[in-house]
Amino acid sequence: MTYFDNNATTPLGQIPLQVYKNALEEDWSNPSSPYLAASRVRAKMEKAREELADSLKLKSDDLIFTSGATESNNAVFAHAATLSSKNKGCLLSPIEHSSILEPARHWFGNRVFNLPVDSGGRVLIDDLEKKIEGNDISLVSLMAANNETGVLQPWQDVARVCAQKGVFFHCDATQWVGKIDASELSCCTSFSASGHKFSGPKGVGWLASTRPFPLQRGGEQENGWRGGTENYPSIASMFSAFTESQEALADFSGRASWRDQFEINLLNFLPDTRILGKEHPRLWNTSMLVMPKFESLSWIGKLDKMGFSVSTGSACSTGSGTNPQVASAMNLSVSETRRLIRISSYSNECAEDWQNLNSAIEQAYTQLEKEASSSSVISL
Amino acid sequence: MTYFDNNATTPLGQIPLQVYKNALEEDWSNPSSPYLAASRVRAKMEKAREELADSLKLKSDDLIFTSGATESNNAVFAHAATLSSKNKGCLLSPIEHSSILEPARHWFGNRVFNLPVDSGGRVLIDDLEKKIEGNDISLVSLMAANNETGVLQPWQDVARVCAQKGVFFHCDATQWVGKIDASELSCCTSFSASGHKFSGPKGVGWLASTRPFPLQRGGEQENGWRGGTENYPSIASMFSAFTESQEALADFSGRASWRDQFEINLLNFLPDTRILGKEHPRLWNTSMLVMPKFESLSWIGKLDKMGFSVSTGSACSTGSGTNPQVASAMNLSVSETRRLIRISSYSNECAEDWQNLNSAIEQAYTQLEKEASSSSVISL
Repeated sequence: MTYFDNNATTPLGQIPLQVYKNALEEDWSNPSSPYLAASRVRAKMEKAREELADSLKLKSDDLIFTSGATESNNAVFAHAATLSSKNKGCLLSPIEHSSILEPARHWFGNRVFNLPVDSGGRVLIDDLEKKIEGNDISLVSLMAANNETGVLQPWQDVARVCAQKGVFFHCDATQWVGKIDASELSCCTSFSASGHKFSGPKGVGWLASTRPFPLQRGGEQENGWRGGTENYPSIASMFSAFTESQEALADFSGRASWRDQFEINLLNFLPDTRILGKEHPRLWNTSMLVMPKFESLSWIGKLDKMGFSVSTGSACSTGSGTNPQVASAMNLSVSETRRLIRISSYSNECAEDWQNLNSAIEQAYTQLEKEASSSSVISL
Repeated sequence: MTYFDNNATTPLGQIPLQVYKNALEEDWSNPSSPYLAASRVRAKMEKAREELADSLKLKSDDLIFTSGATESNNAVFAHAATLSSKNKGCLLSPIEHSSILEPARHWFGNRVFNLPVDSGGRVLIDDLEKKIEGNDISLVSLMAANNETGVLQPWQDVARVCAQKGVFFHCDATQWVGKIDASELSCCTSFSASGHKFSGPKGVGWLASTRPFPLQRGGEQENGWRGGTENYPSIASMFSAFTESQEALADFSGRASWRDQFEINLLNFLPDTRILGKEHPRLWNTSMLVMPKFESLSWIGKLDKMGFSVSTGSACSTGSGTNPQVASAMNLSVSETRRLIRISSYSNECAEDWQNLNSAIEQAYTQLEKEASSSSVISL
């Protein structure tokens, strides 16, 4: 199988897998236990925390390991809502991941305010200051890169405005970390990431925050911010995956040309395909397509049989296709949302895989056309 | 090293490790993705959920995989506190794990009521009904087995009373599951467990609840109760560990005699040792000792050098020794809390290991005596 759904999850890298296996077999002690073997695990874990924090230009005290970005994102909203007075609101882009949108709705109810988004899926922040002041905002949240289109969002600008105003700014950096240089993210009040989006394991991620707060109560772990036995094997493996990704960043950015060539070829073959966010800077790995014909699941099924895994949109909203709130923010028609395909590569997919995907889409199209015409003959 | 700190964490079993490795390499797809490889992972995950639910006499819809018992316990209190009116209280034993005590304090503030505990560390429930009625209780929480003493708590009786009264009853079953038959726990409104306490991996556990509620928002995973990419490799490994533990339960219960013989030998050598909870039914694997002389860390250091890992108490409160609230509930003097050692075996430790621990404690005592007398000579 050629795997083009890396924005949903990535396979564990060979080195992170080896690191994981070693830690599972050797470094399984509870890092909080009082004997030497346990202190060794604690020391290794704190070394990983320090080195990761260094890479991210953070103090290591500000880096809290969690079970992943969904936990981190939920915690930010729970914290912000209980801290601020009942009248305070939060300000979001409507194209956030559901692990932002749903906690926002739960914790802030009718005090959730949206930033506008252009038809390319990039948030518009011209009247950001006015919106913050006018709506008595205590938390602003904007993702770094969109999980469906790959469009890079102007989070640096939002971070600057929020810092000036002393407003908490959270950035869901789940799709950014491991693909683009992450060292500037420390200008956000907090940001979240998940290991399994950059060849690390599932079930581990972090919340980085210059204003830390309790995520799980019950234990002195994670500087007292998150109780529960630390999952060192997963942390070690994630750290190894992160380190590998940082060494590959320059190579990664060059790979945008493979995706771009894929899109050129596709448009040559199916000129009515719409490529979402093409007018904006995007992640180098992502291509979100509105196909001119045939429903998403027909495409996905055909491509699956030909050995290519592609997706409709966020795996978190599969079944319903793309997140309806996101689709509506980008002004997609109902018919368009039914024809979406998301292609996302990562470190394993090469130029040839993209070319082969072009051929597979061409073949799939021919088959789908044929089936459609024969079924219409039958139905006559 | 001979490991006697299994109540803090267990090493991953050989079969769960193999299952884990296989799943990490083969079943890494996002279970919510729309192609065949992903559906296969989803099917395997749902099969594991059904079989585990069957073992636990639950409907599979009532079993939510989490990052561990600390998350599950926190979620129960957050849910109960936001559901019930401001005047409602919660009723606990004061010897609960800190992942119960701290969320209770946070969410219920001064509406946390305690059940009394006898000096053997077993909760007294004679006036349970009166306490529930008199304090307008909406949530009762009692652990199944204490993590420090191993004392089994009367959770079945509490579950019965709560069911009659229609009050939510949560049971932290973290130390029970994998050591004793868990099929009766389904009579609780909810109960929590962690994989790494029964030779499964860290970072995975469950909340079983007949009245499910959202734990993490943002995605349709776990029947909509907990968003976030499902961690199938960890779930598979935990399930394998659970299955192994169930096959070993009869063998496990017979091992109480090894621990009992250890305690007889110890009392022969150091008759002034106090064994906490000895008068009550206890987990077959645990022995919580108040040593007659020398501080916990002196014992732990000596035994560590001799190749034995033992602990002071809960790893979550290490540094401070045992949880001070727990110590006070059991009427331990300050001096006694400084002399605590917790011994906890699991599947790997054999009768001979317990005998060798006796010898090691005798040797450690002799050395500590010698050092104490020589240092007092020096100090003269």
